[in-house]
Amino acid sequence: MTRPDGRKPEQLRPVRLTREWSSHPEGSVLVEFGDTRVLCTASVTEGVPRWRRGSGQGWVTAEYAMLPRATTSRNDRESVKGRIGGRTHEISRLIGRSLRACIDLGALGENSVVLDCDVLQADGGTRTAAITGAYVALADAVSWLSNRQRLRKAPSVVLHRSVAAVSVGVVEGEPRLDLCYAEDVAADVDMNVVCTSNGDFVEVQGTGEASVFSRSELDAMLELAVAGCAELSEAQRVVLT
Amino acid sequence: MTRPDGRKPEQLRPVRLTREWSSHPEGSVLVEFGDTRVLCTASVTEGVPRWRRGSGQGWVTAEYAMLPRATTSRNDRESVKGRIGGRTHEISRLIGRSLRACIDLGALGENSVVLDCDVLQADGGTRTAAITGAYVALADAVSWLSNRQRLRKAPSVVLHRSVAAVSVGVVEGEPRLDLCYAEDVAADVDMNVVCTSNGDFVEVQGTGEASVFSRSELDAMLELAVAGCAELSEAQRVVLT
Amino acid sequence: MTRPDGRKPEQLRPVRLTREWSSHPEGSVLVEFGDTRVLCTASVTEGVPRWRRGSGQGWVTAEYAMLPRATTSRNDRESVKGRIGGRTHEISRLIGRSLRACIDLGALGENSVVLDCDVLQADGGTRTAAITGAYVALADAVSWLSNRQRLRKAPSVVLHRSVAAVSVGVVEGEPRLDLCYAEDVAADVDMNVVCTSNGDFVEVQGTGEASVFSRSELDAMLELAVAGCAELSEAQRVVLT
Amino acid sequence: MTRPDGRKPEQLRPVRLTREWSSHPEGSVLVEFGDTRVLCTASVTEGVPRWRRGSGQGWVTAEYAMLPRATTSRNDRESVKGRIGGRTHEISRLIGRSLRACIDLGALGENSVVLDCDVLQADGGTRTAAITGAYVALADAVSWLSNRQRLRKAPSVVLHRSVAAVSVGVVEGEPRLDLCYAEDVAADVDMNVVCTSNGDFVEVQGTGEASVFSRSELDAMLELAVAGCAELSEAQRVVLT
Amino acid sequence: MTRPDGRKPEQLRPVRLTREWSSHPEGSVLVEFGDTRVLCTASVTEGVPRWRRGSGQGWVTAEYAMLPRATTSRNDRESVKGRIGGRTHEISRLIGRSLRACIDLGALGENSVVLDCDVLQADGGTRTAAITGAYVALADAVSWLSNRQRLRKAPSVVLHRSVAAVSVGVVEGEPRLDLCYAEDVAADVDMNVVCTSNGDFVEVQGTGEASVFSRSELDAMLELAVAGCAELSEAQRVVLT
Amino acid sequence: MTRPDGRKPEQLRPVRLTREWSSHPEGSVLVEFGDTRVLCTASVTEGVPRWRRGSGQGWVTAEYAMLPRATTSRNDRESVKGRIGGRTHEISRLIGRSLRACIDLGALGENSVVLDCDVLQADGGTRTAAITGAYVALADAVSWLSNRQRLRKAPSVVLHRSVAAVSVGVVEGEPRLDLCYAEDVAADVDMNVVCTSNGDFVEVQGTGEASVFSRSELDAMLELAVAGCAELSEAQRVVLT
Repeated sequence: MTRPDGRKPEQLRPVRLTREWSSHPEGSVLVEFGDTRVLCTASVTEGVPRWRRGSGQGWVTAEYAMLPRATTSRNDRESVKGRIGGRTHEISRLIGRSLRACIDLGALGENSVVLDCDVLQADGGTRTAAITGAYVALADAVSWLSNRQRLRKAPSVVLHRSVAAVSVGVVEGEPRLDLCYAEDVAADVDMNVVCTSNGDFVEVQGTGEASVFSRSELDAMLELAVAGCAELSEAQRVVLT
Repeated sequence: MTRPDGRKPEQLRPVRLTREWSSHPEGSVLVEFGDTRVLCTASVTEGVPRWRRGSGQGWVTAEYAMLPRATTSRNDRESVKGRIGGRTHEISRLIGRSLRACIDLGALGENSVVLDCDVLQADGGTRTAAITGAYVALADAVSWLSNRQRLRKAPSVVLHRSVAAVSVGVVEGEPRLDLCYAEDVAADVDMNVVCTSNGDFVEVQGTGEASVFSRSELDAMLELAVAGCAELSEAQRVVLT
Repeated sequence: MTRPDGRKPEQLRPVRLTREWSSHPEGSVLVEFGDTRVLCTASVTEGVPRWRRGSGQGWVTAEYAMLPRATTSRNDRESVKGRIGGRTHEISRLIGRSLRACIDLGALGENSVVLDCDVLQADGGTRTAAITGAYVALADAVSWLSNRQRLRKAPSVVLHRSVAAVSVGVVEGEPRLDLCYAEDVAADVDMNVVCTSNGDFVEVQGTGEASVFSRSELDAMLELAVAGCAELSEAQRVVLT
Repeated sequence: MTRPDGRKPEQLRPVRLTREWSSHPEGSVLVEFGDTRVLCTASVTEGVPRWRRGSGQGWVTAEYAMLPRATTSRNDRESVKGRIGGRTHEISRLIGRSLRACIDLGALGENSVVLDCDVLQADGGTRTAAITGAYVALADAVSWLSNRQRLRKAPSVVLHRSVAAVSVGVVEGEPRLDLCYAEDVAADVDMNVVCTSNGDFVEVQGTGEASVFSRSELDAMLELAVAGCAELSEAQRVVLT
Repeated sequence: MTRPDGRKPEQLRPVRLTREWSSHPEGSVLVEFGDTRVLCTASVTEGVPRWRRGSGQGWVTAEYAMLPRATTSRNDRESVKGRIGGRTHEISRLIGRSLRACIDLGALGENSVVLDCDVLQADGGTRTAAITGAYVALADAVSWLSNRQRLRKAPSVVLHRSVAAVSVGVVEGEPRLDLCYAEDVAADVDMNVVCTSNGDFVEVQGTGEASVFSRSELDAMLELAVAGCAELSEAQRVVLT
Repeated sequence: MTRPDGRKPEQLRPVRLTREWSSHPEGSVLVEFGDTRVLCTASVTEGVPRWRRGSGQGWVTAEYAMLPRATTSRNDRESVKGRIGGRTHEISRLIGRSLRACIDLGALGENSVVLDCDVLQADGGTRTAAITGAYVALADAVSWLSNRQRLRKAPSVVLHRSVAAVSVGVVEGEPRLDLCYAEDVAADVDMNVVCTSNGDFVEVQGTGEASVFSRSELDAMLELAVAGCAELSEAQRVVLT
C-alpha cells in the first residue's frame, strides 16, 4: 500500500511559500502544496463594512475561487453562471473564520483586510493551502499597516497567533496526511483541520459522505493533522523571518 | 452556573417528532428541539438528475431555508435578494451528505428524494434538528416507495442506517449538549455532530471562530454529542415503530 | 351536483385563526381555510423605506410565498431559481394593497410593518386566506406598538377598518364560495374579492382565462363573496376580542 | 367638474390603430389612446414550449414593457436591474390571459405566438391599450398563418372572439371612462375591464388602494367599461376589414 | 455588382431625423437610416452619480437596446434573461464614449444626461444611427438646460463639437458605405467610424472576424466613412437650425 | 519627454511567453508584457455548442477576467456581483474574434476550444497580452488534438495564420507603442491593434474618449502597431519552435 507519489502516510507534500509574488497587494503569497498552487493576496482598505462602523474594530474576510482550468476538466466561471456555488461559499467562510481566529480585531482598528485565495492549479487540499498561505499574506498586510503607523498596537499583538491547515483522510483503511486529488476522491473519510502554532484547534471538519468513521479513526486523523499543522506553522515562521 | 432553561449540561431539550404534519408530501415531519421548529418534507420523484441517468442509482438531496421571521428579527428572503447565502448553502449540503450516508442509492433505484427543511421557528440547533427530522421523513418516503413496489430491495436494506444530529459547545468553560440560541451566541466553541445509531460519525464540524479549543475540550464535546445522538436515534426509532 | 367536500354553494370551509402561533414576531397567525394553511407574521421595524423618510407616514407591505411542498407536487424554490415568479409578485402586491386599505399610515407614524404570508399547505384560496390572516397579525402588531406607546393615536383609529377576502367561482355552471383546489382547476371563472367589515370592496379580481362570464354571473359571484367576507370578518372580530 | 382634456365622463380618448407599423413581425400594430402609444407585435414560431409538445395545441403569450423614458421621469431598465418588477409581470400575465380567451388553441395547432407590447409613450391606460392593440396584431398573425396554410381551421374559427380593454375609475366622486395619467393618480378607485365584442367579461380588476368602493360605484364603472369596450371592438373591426 | 437597394458604394441610405418624436423627454429624436429606426431620448437629471459628486463636472451616459421584434426573428428580452448581453454592453459603451467626446462636462455642471437608444426596427447600422440621433437629442437637452438657466456657459460652449457615425465595410471585394443588414452579414470586413464635424476621429472600430484586411482596404474604408460622416453632420446641423 | 520606464516610443516592454505553465490544460501559457502577467489556458472539449452541432465545424471562444487584486486597488469579483461587466464582455468578445480569425473551423472538426485569459497582474495592455498569449495556447491545443489524431488536416492548415496584438496611443502628443498603465491613463488616444504575421489587420480599435484624433495621428499609430505586432509574431514563432 503506497501513496501515488510515494510519500509516507504522515508526510506532507513539498511546501513552498513565495512572498511578494505580485506587486500591487499589501500582502501577496503564492503557496504550493505539491502541485496545488494558490495565489493568496491581502488587500487593506481603510474603514470597515457599514454594520461595523463606529465599533473601533477591524474586519477580516476571505474570498476563495478557482480559475476555470485549475482542474483536470474545465469548470464554468461562477461570474458567467451569475451565482456562487455552495462549495465556494463554504470554503470562503472557512478561510475567513480561520484567519479571524488569529487576529485581534480591536487592535487592528477600523481597517479591513480582504484575503483573496485564487487557485491557479488544483491537486487536492486547496482550502488548507489557502488558509496556510493567507496567514502569511495577512502577516505582510499587518506589517504594511504597522510601517504606516496605522495600527494601535504592535504587529505581534494584532496577529497574536498563527494558523495553518491541512487535510487528512482514511484511504484504503489507512489514515494519511495531506491528500492529493487522487487520494481525495478515493478517501472514505476526509477531514480538514485548522490549528494554531500551539496545537490548539480552530476548525475541525470531518465528513464521511458515503461512509462513516469510528472514534479511533477520528483520533488517528486528528493526531496526523496536528503534527502536519506544526510543520506548516514552522514553514510560515521561517518564511516570515 | 446554570443553563438558561435550567437543563443539566448533558441534557437535551424536549424533542418532538410529529409525522404526517402535512398531507401532500410522501414524508412530512415537524421536528421540535425545544422552541426550534422545523418542517421536514420528503418529495419523491421518479428519475434522477441528468448527470446520474442510466446509472441505476437513486439520488437524495436537501434544501434548508428559514422563514423570514423564524428569528428574533426579520431576515430578508433569499428569493427577494435573488441569491442564496453561504450559510444556507452550507447547511443544505450538510443535510444532504448526512442523509445520503444512511441510504443505499443503488437499492433505491432511479428515484430521487428531495428533503426540504424549512425552519418555522429558530432557537438554536436548526441544522441538527433538520437532520434528525429529515431522517424520519426519508424513512416515510422509503416506505411509501416500498408500498408501491418501486424499490428493488426491502426498506430496511435501502435505509440501512439511521442518522441523528446534535449541537454541542463550550459555554462559560463548560461543555454543554444541544445549545439553545442564547447559549449558541455565547459559546466559545460550537460543534455539530452527526452520528449513526451505532455511534459512528457521519460528520464532525467544530469551530472556534473568535476562540480556539484544546484536544481535551474536543474530546469532552464528542462524548456529549455521541450520547445525545443515541437519545435522538431512540426517539426516531420509537416514532417510526 | 355536489361539491367535493359536500359543502353548499354558499358555504365556507371551516376557518381557524390561531394567534401567537410563533413566538418571535409582533403578530403571528396561523390561518386555515379547510386544508389551506398559511402562516402570517407581522414584523414591526422602526423607520420607513428611504423614499418615505421624513413624511411622518408609516408603511405596510407584504410578501407571499409557498413552501416547495405545500402543493401536490413539489415546486422549485424561488430562492434557488434566483428570481421571483409573476404569480408570487402579483399576490404579494395584492396582499399589501389590501392591508394598506385598512390602516391610517399617518397615524401609524414612521413605523414599518412587513406581513409575511407563507403557505405551509395549499388547497385553493391561499391568497384570500393570507389576506384574512394577515389582518389579524397586523391587528396584533398594532396592539404591540400601542402597548409600547409608539403610536400617535388609538389602535382603533390606526386600524380603522378590517379586511377579509374570499375566492368565488363558477364551477359546472354553479356559482360557489371559497373554492378548494379541485374546484379551482375546474372553474370556468375565478374571482377573488376583498371586502371591509362594512361590505365595501377593496379589490375585485375576476378572470375567465379560457372562458368568459356574463354580467349576471358576475353579480351572483359578488353576492356570494360579500356574504362570505362578512362571515370571515366576524371570525376575525371574535378571535381578536 | 371637467376632465383635464375636456372629455365627457363616458368618452374615450381618440383611438388610433396603425397596422403594419414595422416590417419584420407577422403582426405589428401601433395603438394610441390619446397620448398613450404602444407598439404591439405578434411573432409566430413553429412549435410550442416543451411542456406543451405533442398536445396538438398552440400557445399564446405576452410580454409588456416600457421604454425607460416613456414616462414623465426616467425609469431604470429592468434588463439593467437584472429582474422584472411585479407590475410588469402582472400586466404581461393579464395581456396573455386576455388574448388566450379569444383564440382556439387547438385550432391554432402547434404554433406559438408571442405578443410584445412595448410602451413608447405613457399617459395612462397602457395595459388596456396594449390588449386592444395586441388583438389586432394577433389577428394579423393568424391571417399570416392562414395564408401559409399552417392553420387547421378558418381564421374566424381560430380567432372566435375579439377582445378589447379599457380603464375606468372614480375621480372626484365621478365615474369616468379611459383615465389619462393625471386622472389615474387622482382616482379613488381604478378598474381595468376586458370584454369580448359580445359584451361578456374576460377580466375585471378593480382596486381601491387607499380607498374602498361600494357596490353602486362598481356597477357604474362596469357600465361605462362595457360601453367603452364596445366602441373599441368596433374600431378593431373597422381597421381589420 | 450592385447593392441590394441599388445605391452607389459611397451613398448613404435616406436619413431622417425627427425631433420631439415623444413628449416627455428633454430631447427625443427618431432617427432613420433607411429601414433602421432608432428612438433616441435624452433624460436630464440634476446631480451626478455618487463617484462624481462634488467634482463640479456633469456626466453623460448611454443605454442601447433592441425591441424583441426589431429584427427578422424575435430575440428574447434581456430583462427576461436577467442579464445584459455582451453586444448590448459594447454598443452602450461606444455610444456613451462618443457623446462624451462632444461635450464639455465641466461646463455642463453637476447635471446628468442619459441617452436611451431603443431600436424599433433594425436593418443594419443601428449603433451608428443611434450615435447620430443621440447627438441631436443631446443638443435638445442642452438647449432645455440652457433655457432654464442651468448651464454655466453658452450651449455652443457646452456642446463644442458635433459627432456623427456611419458603418462601412468591404462586401464582395468592394468598399461600401452605410451597410444594410443584407450587406452586413455578407461583409468580409465591417467598420464603425465616429467623426466630428471637422472630420477628426472619435472612434474607429474595424473587425475582420472570419477574414482579415490590408492597409489599403483600411484606407479606402476610412475615406468613405469620413465623407459619410460629413453628410450626416450636415443633416444634423440642418435639423437643429 | 521620456516614458516612465525609459523606453523609446517604438519599443515594446520585455515580452515573455512561458508554455506549459500549468499542467492540466491542453495549452497553458503565462504571457508577460513587462509587469502585465496573464495566464492563458486552452481547454479542448469534444463536440460543439448546440447551435453548431452537425455543422462539421468546430468552435473557439474566449473568456477574459481579472483577479480582484491584479490592479492597484481591489475590484469586487464579478461572481460576487452576480454579473459580468461591460468591459469584461467586450474584451472576451475581442479575444474570441481575434483567435477565430487564425483558425480553420472546418478543419478543426466538431471540437471546441475555450481560451481562458486570467489577468494575474495588470500594468496596461492586458487584452493585447491576452491575445498574444492565447494564440500560443491555442497552437499547443491544436498540436494536442493532432497528436491524438483528432484533426482532419495538418495543424498548420488548421491554424493557418498567427495573430498577435499590441496597444498604441498618443501620450503628451507623442505616438507610443505598448502603453503601460501610467501611460494608458494619460493617453489622449488609445488604440488596440490585432495583426497577423503577414501584417494584415484582424481588429483595429481606436478611441479618443475625452479627445479626438486626426488622420495623421491614426496613421502614425497604425505604423507603430504593425511593427510591434511583427516583433510579437516573431516571439510567438520562436517559443513555438
